[in-house]
This record gives sequence, C-alpha cells and structure tokens, in this order.
Amino acid sequence: MSAYGGVEAGGTKFVCAIGSGPDKLETEISFATTTPRETIDQALAFFREYQQRKELLAVGVGSFGPVDLNPVSPTFGYITTTPKPGWVNTELLGRIRRALGVPVGFDTDVNVAALGEATWGAAKGLETFAYVTVGTGIGGGGIVNGRLMHGLLHPEIGHMRLPHDFDDDPYRGACSVHGDCFEGLAAGPALLGRWGRSAEELAPDHPAWSLEAHYLALGLTNLILTLSPQRIVMGGGIMKQTTLFQMVRRNVLQLLNGYLQVPTILEQIDQYIVPAELGDRSGVLGAMALAQKAVANLR
Amino acid sequence: MSAYGGVEAGGTKFVCAIGSGPDKLETEISFATTTPRETIDQALAFFREYQQRKELLAVGVGSFGPVDLNPVSPTFGYITTTPKPGWVNTELLGRIRRALGVPVGFDTDVNVAALGEATWGAAKGLETFAYVTVGTGIGGGGIVNGRLMHGLLHPEIGHMRLPHDFDDDPYRGACSVHGDCFEGLAAGPALLGRWGRSAEELAPDHPAWSLEAHYLALGLTNLILTLSPQRIVMGGGIMKQTTLFQMVRRNVLQLLNGYLQVPTILEQIDQYIVPAELGDRSGVLGAMALAQKAVANLR
Repeated sequence: MSAYGGVEAGGTKFVCAIGSGPDKLETEISFATTTPRETIDQALAFFREYQQRKELLAVGVGSFGPVDLNPVSPTFGYITTTPKPGWVNTELLGRIRRALGVPVGFDTDVNVAALGEATWGAAKGLETFAYVTVGTGIGGGGIVNGRLMHGLLHPEIGHMRLPHDFDDDPYRGACSVHGDCFEGLAAGPALLGRWGRSAEELAPDHPAWSLEAHYLALGLTNLILTLSPQRIVMGGGIMKQTTLFQMVRRNVLQLLNGYLQVPTILEQIDQYIVPAELGDRSGVLGAMALAQKAVANLR
Repeated sequence: MSAYGGVEAGGTKFVCAIGSGPDKLETEISFATTTPRETIDQALAFFREYQQRKELLAVGVGSFGPVDLNPVSPTFGYITTTPKPGWVNTELLGRIRRALGVPVGFDTDVNVAALGEATWGAAKGLETFAYVTVGTGIGGGGIVNGRLMHGLLHPEIGHMRLPHDFDDDPYRGACSVHGDCFEGLAAGPALLGRWGRSAEELAPDHPAWSLEAHYLALGLTNLILTLSPQRIVMGGGIMKQTTLFQMVRRNVLQLLNGYLQVPTILEQIDQYIVPAELGDRSGVLGAMALAQKAVANLR
C-alpha cells in the first residue's frame, strides 16, 4: 500500500493522517494548534515515527492563511499575514520538506478540502466547482477549468462585501479587518456576537438561522455570478445545522430571480448546493490527494 | 495574409471585421442592432461579399447574452433569456456556420473582449485575469488557469449584490430583474436614472463619479476576493471617464484594508487595475482571436 501523508493545518487544530484514500487510512492524529514550533514539531514527530517503520511517499499540506502560493517567492509555503497571534510569517512547506525528506504539496486549507471533494467526494469529475466552508471563518476555494484556483494569491471570499440592512440586523460585524464583510456577518463569531450564543447552542428554529441563510445565500449568489461553478459544496462547523441547506437554496433562487435559466439551478438546486461528502475529512483527505499530486508532478 | 472574421454582437450595435490582428485589419463594418433577422443578415452579407473575392478561414462571435455555451445543449450558440425585445432564443452560431461554411467560435461578448486583451492587449501572458466592461450593462469575463471562464454557464458579475446605503444614495437601482445589483447601481442607466444625465453629460468633477467609483470598487473588490486575478482590465463606455480609474484604485485599497499583502496590489495598483489597451476594439479583435482558436481546435 502506497502511503501519503496529509496535514490539515487549521487555526484551531491540526489533523495529520497517512494512507491513500478514504477507505485506506493507516493512521491519524489530531491536536490543538498552539505555537508554530510546538504544533509543527508534533506533526513532524507523527510522520517521522511512521518513516522509521515504512516509506512515506509524499506529504500534502492544506493550511489556514493567508498563505504564499507563489513558487518563485522567497516566502513560498509560508503562512503570511494571518491575524492568528504568533503565526505571522511562519514557514510550513520548507520545514516539513527538510525534516521528512519527501516531496511536499502545499495549498490553502480550503483548496485542499476542495481537492478532497473533487477526488473522492461531492465534486468528482467536475471541471469547475466551488467549495465553501463556514466555521470560525468563511473560506472558498475550488477548481476552475480543471485546476485549483490560484491566480494572484488565492480566493478569500470570506471578505466579500454584501448588502447589510442595519434596520433588520444592527449587528456591526465580527471581522477585525472589514467589520461586516461576508465572514464578519455570517461566520461563527458573528453568530456568537449577534445572539450571545454559539451555533451549537442555537435551536434549529431560532431566527438566527434564517438570517444566517440570508447572508450565506448572498455570498453564494455572488460566487455563482462570478465563477459560474457547476456545483457548490459546503462544509465547516456552521453547516452542521443541516436545515440551513434548504433555506440557503431557496434564498439563492429568490436572489437570482430567474436570471440564470439553467436547469441545474432552476430544477436541481438540491444537487447544486450540497454538503461536503467527506464531511470533516475533506481537508485531511484532500491533503493526501495533494501529496499524490506532488509525486505525480515529479514524474 | 490569413483572414479571420470577427463579430462583436452587441445589444446596441454589431461590429464585424476581417483580418488577423490589430495591425492587420482588412475591412470593418458596424451597424445598429435591430431585429435578429435584419441584423444577422447584414453581418452575413458582409462576410459573403468577402468570400466572393477571397478565402475566409473562420469566424469568431462574441455575443451579448445570456448565451448558451454548452456544446451538447440543443440551444448551443443561442442568445437565450435576454431582456432585449425580439432576441430571446435567437440562434447565432449555427446560422453563421451554415451560411458561411466555415468554423465558427462562439462566446460571450465579455469573454471575447477578454481574449482580445489577452492576445494583443493589456493581459498578454497572464494565466488568470478578469475583464470588466461598464456600459449599458456591467459584464465580466476572463481567463482562469489559462482558459476562458465558462463553468456551468458564464460569469454574470453585473448581477452581484453589493452594499447599498439608501441614506447616502436613495436611488433604487435600474436592473429590471434585481433592482440594485451591481449593474443596477453602476451601469449607464443607473447614472441616467440617478442624476437625470447620461455619463457623457456629467462633468468630471460631478459627485456622480465618486459614487460610481465607490460601487465599481465594491464590485472589483468582490471579484478580487473571489477570482484572485493577476490583473483587472476595464473597458466600456463609462470607463471613458478616465478619472474613474484613480478613484476606483484608491477605493479598492481602502476596501481591502491591507488584507491581501501582495505587492501587485499594495504597491502596483496602477498596473493592477488598468484600461483595456485595445479600447473599443477589444471585442471585435477578440472575436478574430476566437476565430483563430476555432481553426486551431480543428487541427
């Protein structure tokens, strides 16, 4: 069995796994994200222990960000300007490559989760799709024309500006950089700030959810009108409130108001906006898929 | 000299040209868009006249929309649900191909203008960039990962939802489908509706322009955060008010508020948000480039 390593480097926790697919996982570990040194050392120890017994072909890393994905930049593979204390300008890719001596693939946490869904989940075979995660922040990534979205940097859809009716929702927004951007209005901290309760504590019939669905639908509508994805796959902690999906779909149809006359949206919205099939494992499995790509790229 | 035909099929006028590049134009014609039959016949007559004298290798068409770009759809190459009277469900590609007997490339007007800028203009050599046109409507297109943006349909960024402060700007928006979407707030009809004067009649120091720059910057900021383009090229009638560029750039920097730490944006915004180099000819020249691609695809 070929063994690839995957690292889901999240702002709250790291998940590391070794294997070659959803049904072929050999070992997995997760631990809290503390200081860069401690956290990265813990990940390296996990892989090194495996290397003493068996061969690890490559590692893929999906990291919280912003990250530098420009291969010719001196800080390629670094976490750059993150608001997370202690993590500004943290080298990730280089440290892992030097420590383990294997090829390392590197991308954003969201792009890597998108790759997981494209390889084994809800987006198999699609040329152009978006993956949106709604949790402590809002991130978007995906594949366009068959390749992960990069461009100048990488998507940061959580910071889009959306209509915000202060009469309806006087909450000022939770984003430290933009106030009431998409993430500032609709990620976990906004729910907590607006209602005084976390997503887990809000009952499914609480009015919080219809407002949440409204903002999510605004964000998805803008995404649909920009990328024209063939499907939108949604993950992240907030989307565990699964009643959101039906509300979001209905709101998106209302916002588009029939403008895009495509059956995929008009008649099959239930298959157009869908939950991540790999659930919490899109990230770590996608990182494993990225490791496989890193090996393929060497050939 | 190899001769390719280009058709810029606009909602107001059609421009047709024959040649092989900006400096190699043999002949060009433009006429008002009236009924589908009359307008398409006029375009066909132009190309047929040429075919009686010389060989035309292929034709490219950039059309107003929405259009059907799905090659396996029965209405591939049609204008579909356009609000333009008389033009709903108009076959374009098939009619031109049958009448002229040459390969025909077909895409949105905006993608085709983007292709023109990518081939001979302000976006040469870029893997991922966006083209935005602001005129009677707002359209966006571009190239992502080296190929024109398609996905499920094609981008329709003019219908994005943006923040709209009714205290600051009580105008309700001009879009017949969405009211105060991006286009409803910032395209030509919105300027006319809000100020009672057309873009040409508004002096460069009229307050209309700073509000216009504000909305354009909101739209571009969302585009940057979604696509992460390496450059944004802007064309269309409204952008002839060139003082807009500096205001838009400044507003975009303010809206991003330092979140994207990339020198291309932070230090070189003047080269990041730029006017179309081919000006009014991005469309017809891009259509010619699309014709060349249509021939290349046959090989």
